[in-house]
Formats: sequence, structure tokens, C-alpha cells
Amino acid sequence: MELTDFKMVARKYETIFFDAFGVLKNHKGLIPGIGNTFQYLNQHGIDFYVLTNDASRSPAELAASYEDLGIYDITEEKIISSGMLAREYLKLKVKSGTVAYLGTRQSAHYIETLGLKTVSIANVDLENASDIQALVFLDDEGFDWREDLNRCINLLRQQNIPAIVCNTDYSYPESRKEVAIAIGALAHMVEDIVGKKFIKFGKPDAQIFIFAYEHAAKRGGTTDKDKILMVGDTLVMDILGGNKFGLDTALVLTGNTLTKNTEMRINSLGIIPTFVCESAVIDQ
Amino acid sequence: MELTDFKMVARKYETIFFDAFGVLKNHKGLIPGIGNTFQYLNQHGIDFYVLTNDASRSPAELAASYEDLGIYDITEEKIISSGMLAREYLKLKVKSGTVAYLGTRQSAHYIETLGLKTVSIANVDLENASDIQALVFLDDEGFDWREDLNRCINLLRQQNIPAIVCNTDYSYPESRKEVAIAIGALAHMVEDIVGKKFIKFGKPDAQIFIFAYEHAAKRGGTTDKDKILMVGDTLVMDILGGNKFGLDTALVLTGNTLTKNTEMRINSLGIIPTFVCESAVIDQ
Amino acid sequence: MELTDFKMVARKYETIFFDAFGVLKNHKGLIPGIGNTFQYLNQHGIDFYVLTNDASRSPAELAASYEDLGIYDITEEKIISSGMLAREYLKLKVKSGTVAYLGTRQSAHYIETLGLKTVSIANVDLENASDIQALVFLDDEGFDWREDLNRCINLLRQQNIPAIVCNTDYSYPESRKEVAIAIGALAHMVEDIVGKKFIKFGKPDAQIFIFAYEHAAKRGGTTDKDKILMVGDTLVMDILGGNKFGLDTALVLTGNTLTKNTEMRINSLGIIPTFVCESAVIDQ
Amino acid sequence: MELTDFKMVARKYETIFFDAFGVLKNHKGLIPGIGNTFQYLNQHGIDFYVLTNDASRSPAELAASYEDLGIYDITEEKIISSGMLAREYLKLKVKSGTVAYLGTRQSAHYIETLGLKTVSIANVDLENASDIQALVFLDDEGFDWREDLNRCINLLRQQNIPAIVCNTDYSYPESRKEVAIAIGALAHMVEDIVGKKFIKFGKPDAQIFIFAYEHAAKRGGTTDKDKILMVGDTLVMDILGGNKFGLDTALVLTGNTLTKNTEMRINSLGIIPTFVCESAVIDQ
Repeated sequence: MELTDFKMVARKYETIFFDAFGVLKNHKGLIPGIGNTFQYLNQHGIDFYVLTNDASRSPAELAASYEDLGIYDITEEKIISSGMLAREYLKLKVKSGTVAYLGTRQSAHYIETLGLKTVSIANVDLENASDIQALVFLDDEGFDWREDLNRCINLLRQQNIPAIVCNTDYSYPESRKEVAIAIGALAHMVEDIVGKKFIKFGKPDAQIFIFAYEHAAKRGGTTDKDKILMVGDTLVMDILGGNKFGLDTALVLTGNTLTKNTEMRINSLGIIPTFVCESAVIDQ
Repeated sequence: MELTDFKMVARKYETIFFDAFGVLKNHKGLIPGIGNTFQYLNQHGIDFYVLTNDASRSPAELAASYEDLGIYDITEEKIISSGMLAREYLKLKVKSGTVAYLGTRQSAHYIETLGLKTVSIANVDLENASDIQALVFLDDEGFDWREDLNRCINLLRQQNIPAIVCNTDYSYPESRKEVAIAIGALAHMVEDIVGKKFIKFGKPDAQIFIFAYEHAAKRGGTTDKDKILMVGDTLVMDILGGNKFGLDTALVLTGNTLTKNTEMRINSLGIIPTFVCESAVIDQ
Repeated sequence: MELTDFKMVARKYETIFFDAFGVLKNHKGLIPGIGNTFQYLNQHGIDFYVLTNDASRSPAELAASYEDLGIYDITEEKIISSGMLAREYLKLKVKSGTVAYLGTRQSAHYIETLGLKTVSIANVDLENASDIQALVFLDDEGFDWREDLNRCINLLRQQNIPAIVCNTDYSYPESRKEVAIAIGALAHMVEDIVGKKFIKFGKPDAQIFIFAYEHAAKRGGTTDKDKILMVGDTLVMDILGGNKFGLDTALVLTGNTLTKNTEMRINSLGIIPTFVCESAVIDQ
Repeated sequence: MELTDFKMVARKYETIFFDAFGVLKNHKGLIPGIGNTFQYLNQHGIDFYVLTNDASRSPAELAASYEDLGIYDITEEKIISSGMLAREYLKLKVKSGTVAYLGTRQSAHYIETLGLKTVSIANVDLENASDIQALVFLDDEGFDWREDLNRCINLLRQQNIPAIVCNTDYSYPESRKEVAIAIGALAHMVEDIVGKKFIKFGKPDAQIFIFAYEHAAKRGGTTDKDKILMVGDTLVMDILGGNKFGLDTALVLTGNTLTKNTEMRINSLGIIPTFVCESAVIDQ
């Protein structure tokens, strides 16, 4: 398995899309030295965006969290989250009424900026639910799993409304040793039980890549896919998604894919990154 | 769709296996008149057993619940539950140590009769879990879904122990209009996340039918499969399982399969019962 | 189930995307009167495109087949096929070498216009396959299923190359009563056996919709999704895909979804079209 | 990963079930020295049976094939194949009429001993198919995949008959480097397309284990599951199936599971054999 230095890779492109978890940060915080990468990209006029399946917070809040970690280059407009796709869907397809959600109060705030009324699944009264126009899975916190997942199922059985899933991940790391169940796994279970087809946003689905591509183009970025690189730590999410959208891809080994298994994983999955790099850190 | 009177069907067999929910009872209680059926079978020397995916209680407790409803013919030894298969598995494969479980205190009691120590998942300390030899999914009550399902996942990641699922159902009816998520759906979600293969007991899998068949034979029943009938309300559980095991099967319309959809369901699933009966009630 | 007249629906939009099979034609040929629809749209300045999962022929050949049926308005540039997405992928990701394919000679011709060498799977020599850079599933004809599907599997086991699927359909109608296995089902079987992740193009995946959207925009069409309608006969392909992309959708009953089952299907799948119309025919 | 000598393991049991491919033979022929194992077992009064998912030949023909390889101890009554379960099913559930099959003439012969008429799928006339009472998937040879798989699908759409699958394997090894698609994969594809539930026999399903257990008991073998060992090379088939049935299990490394990956596979799948042995060979 030949490793390429990320600086050598990065300078070939005009725009770079980064996955967040496993590339920029991990359970301990920022990947050491990753701040340099964005300074380098800015200095060399290489545009960049962060593509994340995290819908628990708005882009503004996500940007603030990077600022808290000492990274000032990842501003609000540099962030594309699957929550933005769900918001876009609701804007186009749900013009009025109430949207029920699973997640924290905070996660729903972003939807409210559309002018839609929102109600936590915890507060849905199944006897008076006729105003509810959609159900959105945002975050695994903010509700009682037993009571409120059961309420979800009965809401979807009783009313024919779309269900939107903003994070297709099944789990996320909580510490060096532990993982936690993500909202994607809960949504998938509910989908299986009710037998309906949910609308899912997030990598590796093409829609988040086209959203990022158009967002970058509107801000003056390249529309030449040959000039865009996707960087990620997960073959089935970041690299498969980037490849399918026609981008070059770089797998980094700071997250989900361990160095010793890289070649075996690439071969057994048949998902082939254009480059493999130890990390996305650019030393200056 | 031709309906056959259940009395005409029943008298052709020496042993009858009944599904419980949807055949003997529903969310409102007993199916009216079902008590007569068991009197008739006893009078005519037809043996019978109840096969259930309910592992939340021991056969003795399940029998007591029928007694509370006024049915005295369904005694402890007439009941075959998927919990009995899990108990048999543990008896053969886990000779010592502690078994962690998801379910109520009551659901675990039955396992303790093996002499194994049990611990609720809620009380598992991941730092001191080396004595745990198996994880058993018994019931959807008795634990905190968020906290304890996350604990399950980390237990299974940290220790290589078998996970046993005693109820493969995804949901169960709670009232005329509402359903609830069953432990089978939670177990399936955990299995997906950890990527391991769980050991699952319950219809339509052959093992519960074998268990019932051997149990009946030991008590003097027929070993001629041609003389055994399986009665159920669910095509994919009861009828598929009975057919595959080589039994004749009767679909009843008091539960999951509605009269108006029967023919369409049979044709679209390709699961063909030997008989279709309005109910398992025998009027005398 | 309230039906809306298609003319009333169509006139609200600036651009209309049509599914082909079940909307414009069926196993007997054209849907009677569908020619009027395109005359009407042209007269009223409503732009239209046909989105099809058919990768067995190039857009030029597909257009010629409409011409043969007497429809002159569906020209080459009005057609978006999943084969175009595969071609785009190959153009971006496979710059040189040979592409192996499953399909007729004709189906591969379109790929050759990229300047890539192509070889039918039937002519692949596994001992000398190192020049093969990708495997593309185009059509169910043109090869020996037993011999060549086995060759596919061994090619993918021996070489780590991307596999691209241009038609995700599992079957297609051959006559009033019979269906045939489509290349999508064969590709799915091969994917299961080799355990790799294939790259799949076609409805309901977002990428074909964005391709059509950009193609229409480049030709002067609207970029306002509110002004685009997707018309299809299949809930899980056309309507789910259109909805997810943020378009209004019209289900027509000339194909896969039968009138008597419409409401039941919509409710059980939870896929909700904006309109339901008897057909896409506009009488003048 | 601690390896145990197979002789030390074998002598603890009264009956041993062996998987065939990967344990007794591989693509090159017999595992060298495996003949000694059966002499040893016979000398020490340890009963044994071979459990195989191979339904392409009758037990008599399978035994003859071992004789051709120089093993005379594996006689007809020592062999339990998934074809025997299908035959049992047909005997109990299809009393008359014609059974259509996919496979060679030879594979169907075994069914004919029931007195049922059989017809190769290649000779089924869909216009005159009303006498067909079941469709059985036996072997991947003996029919034209394209023409006859399409005929299967239309037969199952037109007639509501059970479909029986006698081999759940997806592929089998043909040489050191190449594998071939097995009938199990073709059956699974057909099942997906027609949307019906097929009846499947073969490991890891419990029914083949109970069949072997009862067969052994009838011939005087032990009924104490503690005294029976299952030996296999595949975790998800042999070991999972044996464990679930309550048997002790021994994984051997002469087939599917490679020595270097054993520990990783056991941990990632969570399927735990009682023993791991280099091979099932007993040197004398």
C-alpha cells in the first residue's frame, strides 16, 4: 500500500471536500496539526468545504464548535451538513403545517428558520396529530427512546406523511473504546417496522455531493469535477460517495480505516481511493 | 377464497399446534368462544400445544395468564415458548458464569433455574464484565433503551460472547390501533451495528417446531407429521414455519391476516396454507 | 383517491420529466394518444425530458425508436438515460485502458465514444485481464449467463476494479403476462457473491435527477425546482426519487401501479405523489 | 489462537457430524490423510455422519463418489444432504402431480423415487403448467440460465406453488483460484424478483441438524447433544448451525477459514467454536 503525502495531493486541486469525524477530529478533539492544513489551503487559494452527516446542529453552531477548538477557517459557509438537505427538502415539499422531530430542541431550531412549526416527538399527541406534515430524524438525544420511538411508529401508521432521515450513520465514537447508537440506526429500525420508505440524506448518497458542488460553484468555485478532491476516513461513506459523483478521492488513516487493514479493506470492498494518505495534516 | 369450518379441520388430526396471539387471544383478551375449542379437543382425544415467540415469561406464568382468563386446559406443559429454546441453548452451551439479559427481572427468572447467575444489562459494569458468558434478549421492558442498548453494543464489542434472541417479532399489538416495538427489532438493530451473527429462536425457524414435536412425542403424542396441524394467523411466521417443517397448516382470520386481503396475501407471498378458517373457535 | 386531469397538472410547470416505460409506452407499444401530450407541451412552451433506466442503447438510438413509433418530439437531447451517468463516471474516473461489459455490442458502442477500448465479458481472458480497468453492467442480452456471470465473479475476485451498474431495475415486462430478468438483478447477485460495493446509477438515486436538472438548465430551462414536475408510474422509483430531489410528482396509472391498488400502495409505502393522474395523455 | 489436536477432541464424543467440502475434500480432491480419521472413528466406536448442502446427487451417488476417492467408510446411510430434506418436504406436502426442477436429470432422479412426476424447467410449457405443484432448485447445471430462469419467474407469477431451495450456498470453489455461482444464489435472485418466500433447506438452518440427529438416533446413536460434535470449515454455516442446535463445534482450517484470519473472523462475527483444529485428520 503506497502512501502519498497529503500536501502533494492537495495542491493538484482547486476545491477540496473534507469529511469531519476521523479526518479533522476524533473522540479526543482535533487531529494534531490539522489547523495548518486550512492555513495552507487558504494561502494557496485552494477552496475547501466540510461535508458532514451530523444534523444535530446548524452549520453556524458547527462552525462555532470548530472555533472553540481553535480553528477559525471553517466558517459557517464552509460547512455542508445532511441537515441542510433535509431543510431544503422541507422547504420545497412541506409548505405549511407542523413538522415533528426526533432530536434536541437545538437540532430543530434550524428547521424553524423555514417558518414551519416544529414539535418534539415527545410532545406529539396522537389524538391530535392531523396537522403534522412530516417526521424528521435529527439526533439521538432529546427524547425518551422507548416511549417516543413507539410514538413514532404509531404516528406513521396513523398518518401518511413523509419521514426524513438526516443522518444515515448507524453509530458514532464516544471515546477511545466506546461507540454510541446514532439516529440513523434508530430510523432504520422504525422504517423496518412500519414497512414504509423513508427519505434519507447523507453520504454516500449523491445528493449531499451535488449540494456541496453547487454551493461551492455559487461561491465562485470550480465546476470541473476533475479539479475537486474528496477526503475521508471511511471507504463506504466518503470514498464510495466521492467516486460515484466522479471526484478524485483520498483515504486518510486517522479514523475508521486502520493502517494495517487498509489494503485488505480496499480489496474486499472494491472501493478504490485515488490516493491513500496517512492524514490530512499539511506540515509547513 | 374457500373457508373451511375449523371443527371439520381439527378432527382430522391427532395433535394441533396453536399460535397464541391472533389465534387464542388479541389485544382485547380471549377470542370469544375459544375456550370451547380446548374442551372439544380434550373430549375427542386430540392433543394440543401452544407455540409462542413470547419469552417475557416462563411457561408456568404463561399458563397462569390463561387461567386468569378462564382457560384451564392450557397448562404449563402445553406451552412451548422461544424462551424455552434459549434456556436449552444456555443449558447446553453455557455451563457456568453470568448471563446478561435485556428484559424484566421476571423474564430472567426462568434462566436462573439453570443455576446460572444472571445480571440485567442495566447493572452490567463494562469495566468488570469478564465473567459474562452470554447476552440474552428477552423482553422490551425492564431497562432504559438508550443507556442500556448502548451498553449492549459496547459489551459485545469488548467481549466475544454469543448473543441470543428469544423473540424474532419486530412489533406487537398494544390496542386496537397501536403497536409497540418488540425486543426482536431492538436485537436486530444491535446485530446490524456490531456486525456479529446472533442466535435467534422463534417461529418461523424450524427449531421451535422440532422442540414442540419432540416435547409432544415424549408425552405420548404422534410422531407422524401427517397427523399434526399448525394453526396460526400470520403467513410468514406460523404457516411458513409449519409448512417447512412438513405439517399441514390452517390460517385463521382473527389476527394479522384480514379476510379481505387473505387471497392477495397468499398469492403475493407464495405461502400456501392447507386450510383457511374464519377462526379456531369450535362451537359445540 | 382523487384523480387530477394531467393537462391541469402539466400547465403549472415549466419543465416536466417523464419516465418512459409505463408512462409513454408499454409492452404493446405507445400509450394511445401520448403523442398529443408532447405537441401540447411544445405549443405551450413547456420543456420536457425523458428519464430512463434503460442503458441498452444510446440516447440517439432511443430517440430513433420513438421516431419509429411516430413520435418526433422526443429527440436525442430530450433523453437522459442511466447509461449517460455511467459514461460520465467512466470519463471522469477511467482515463485509459479497457472496459469490460455485460450487454450487446450495441450497448457498449456508447462507451467507446469516450475513446476507451471495450471488451465483452464473453471475450475476457482471465489469464490476460490486467488491462481491464472497470466492469460495466449494461444489458441482459449479448452474453451467456452461466459462463459469463461466472467469468465476472472471477474477474472481480482477481482484480480490484470498480463495477458499474447502469440499470437498477430487477425485471422488465415482455408481454401482457410475462416479465424478464433485468441486468440490475444479475448485477445485484454478482455483488452479493463477491461481497464488493458496486456503483449504481438510475432512479430513484438522486444522481440521474441532478443530471437531468443540469442538462435542462444548460439548455435554458428553469433552475427553480418548484417549476419542475416528475411523472412516473412506479412509486419506489419515479415518485420517491422525484420527491427526494425536491420536485413535485405525478403518479400515472398506465403502468406498474394499478388503479384499484393505488391508495393502498401509497399508504403502505408512505411515498406520496403530489398528484395522481389516470395517464399522461393530454387530449386536445 | 490455541489449536487443539483433532484426535484429542474427537475421542470425547460418541457421534461426530462432518461438513464435506473444506473438511473431507477440497478442489484438489481428498484432504490428505482424512481416510485415517474414519478408520480411527470406526475402531473406537465413534459414530459419524456427513452433513452437506449438496443436492445435486442422491446420498447413494455421493457415497459412490467417496468410494471412487478411496474412502469406503462413508456409506450411503452416513450421508445427510439438504436434498434429503427437500425430498421429505415433498413427500409430506406434495402428494401428487408434477414437480418442476432446476438441475441435471440426475439431481431430479432422487425426487422421482417418491413416485412424483418431474419435469426439467427447460421442458415446462407455461401454457400447460397447471399440473405443476412445486418448483425445486437442485443444481446450477442442466438448464439454460437465461431462458430457464426467466421461465421460472413467469411460472411462479402465474401459479401459486411452493418454491423449494435445496442448497443455500451462493458459490462453490472450482479450482484453486476460481469459484462458481451456486444454485442458492440463483434461487435468491428469483425470490427477490417474484417477491415470494421460498422454503430453504441446508446449513446453518436447524432442520438439517435435527434430521441428522434423528437419523443417527434411529440407527442407535446417542440422543445426548453433549455427546455430539459438529466439525466444519465455515463459521456462518457449520459452526453457527451446530452451536445453535446445542452441539459442541470444531472449526478446521483446511477450507474456507484461513489460519491467519481465524481469530479476527471469530471475533468479528461473534461465532465461537468450542475448538479450533488445524484439520480433521487423525494420524495413527
